[in-house]
Amino acid sequence: MDENEERLLIEGRNEVIEAIRAGKSFEKLYMLDGARDGAAQSIRREAKKYGIRIDFVDKKRLDAMSDTGKHQGVIARIAAYRYAEVSDILYRAEKKGEDPFILLLDNIEDPHNLGAIIRTANLCGAHGVIIEKDRAVGLTAITAKASAGALNYTPVARVTNLSRTIDELKSKGLWFACADMDGELMYKQDLTGPIGIVIGSEGNGVSRLVRSKCDFITSIPMKGDIDSLNASVAAGVLAYEVVRQRMEKGKN
Amino acid sequence: MDENEERLLIEGRNEVIEAIRAGKSFEKLYMLDGARDGAAQSIRREAKKYGIRIDFVDKKRLDAMSDTGKHQGVIARIAAYRYAEVSDILYRAEKKGEDPFILLLDNIEDPHNLGAIIRTANLCGAHGVIIEKDRAVGLTAITAKASAGALNYTPVARVTNLSRTIDELKSKGLWFACADMDGELMYKQDLTGPIGIVIGSEGNGVSRLVRSKCDFITSIPMKGDIDSLNASVAAGVLAYEVVRQRMEKGKN
Repeated sequence: MDENEERLLIEGRNEVIEAIRAGKSFEKLYMLDGARDGAAQSIRREAKKYGIRIDFVDKKRLDAMSDTGKHQGVIARIAAYRYAEVSDILYRAEKKGEDPFILLLDNIEDPHNLGAIIRTANLCGAHGVIIEKDRAVGLTAITAKASAGALNYTPVARVTNLSRTIDELKSKGLWFACADMDGELMYKQDLTGPIGIVIGSEGNGVSRLVRSKCDFITSIPMKGDIDSLNASVAAGVLAYEVVRQRMEKGKN
Repeated sequence: MDENEERLLIEGRNEVIEAIRAGKSFEKLYMLDGARDGAAQSIRREAKKYGIRIDFVDKKRLDAMSDTGKHQGVIARIAAYRYAEVSDILYRAEKKGEDPFILLLDNIEDPHNLGAIIRTANLCGAHGVIIEKDRAVGLTAITAKASAGALNYTPVARVTNLSRTIDELKSKGLWFACADMDGELMYKQDLTGPIGIVIGSEGNGVSRLVRSKCDFITSIPMKGDIDSLNASVAAGVLAYEVVRQRMEKGKN
């Protein structure tokens, strides 16, 4: 197993079906012995189609294996999740004939938030997600589940040094917008070009060094009493402002 | 305790400080014996200012009390959370001289999502959140924590029958937009008037009856491979489209 790989449990019915259909390489597929409902039959059918053997086990065994506590009677161990390279993300944009659109996460520690952001990245048409080694949570089963299958489609690259990656991508024509409270309102900024949106952790925001590398600060209007949105909500609101502006320009 | 009240644990440093500052009525404030760091001192100072007595206890005791598993050395039991009435939400809009803007949740079961949505409601300037009795998760400690203090400011009303409430609010001039995939793109709709946005659960979306009461279906563009956004992300993206349109019209 090289350092770009991570072993991964996939738990839950939709998640497992998504993984089968996405052609993931299964090491093991465990199912609750005796499950006969519609979802269980779909999984059997798909597994058969892709030549995946099913091990039928009892609930105790599934419970003991489960990371999320919500396996719904099915757990798969896939060979490994393979992190993408940043170049894979750029290639994906190129292949689609679109300006690159990347979400960069600085120090997101909550696996639910990471999963929800990968899910958003998939649906808003971003070409990939970049996280930093060591400083962020990795791709766990909780993240996979929270991503609702998006992890099978949207490349996630893990880099050693986020600010260095930003420098490299700037030299390739990308602009970087750092999400923070003291910037200009996102509605007044042009977010339609090749862009990376940098989202920080809830406690600490974007780190100073990474922030200093960004071309501008972008702000979501805040009309309330508390400090900040949930990180995955903020990522969603910003990502969809990019979508809106690109659609308005007839770009996507 | 009447049926509009719920007892509530508040866990975590920021959450407890927010609750103290918001003037919540504390039954008990438990702190880890010997905590001397900055956050602990802030809590002591605030508690003193508001005349709240602190019980110092050991970690075992805090762990046993905790609902969230993330108490950070401090847990408060507040007298009760009091659900608001729908009329309180309308009054709040009136007092601010704004068109009502309400988020209605149909069957949201995840307390993290509920908390994140209350947090979003607070920050996007919505006047309140409406949930349905029995069919939705209530205001638990996990919800309070996920709301990051917003539960102290943003009224949450709990109604017996969501579709009846929609009828009543329609007679008061509100329009209702149901978030779903087969509607018109939100960017093309006028969301600037008195409005309620209805968000469904992730598994099942908005129920048929509630959906049939809505004036229109509003859709977030979906450009990816999977089915749907996380419910709290979808709520955030839609709520901020309302904010954008209202700002553009010079309304808020």
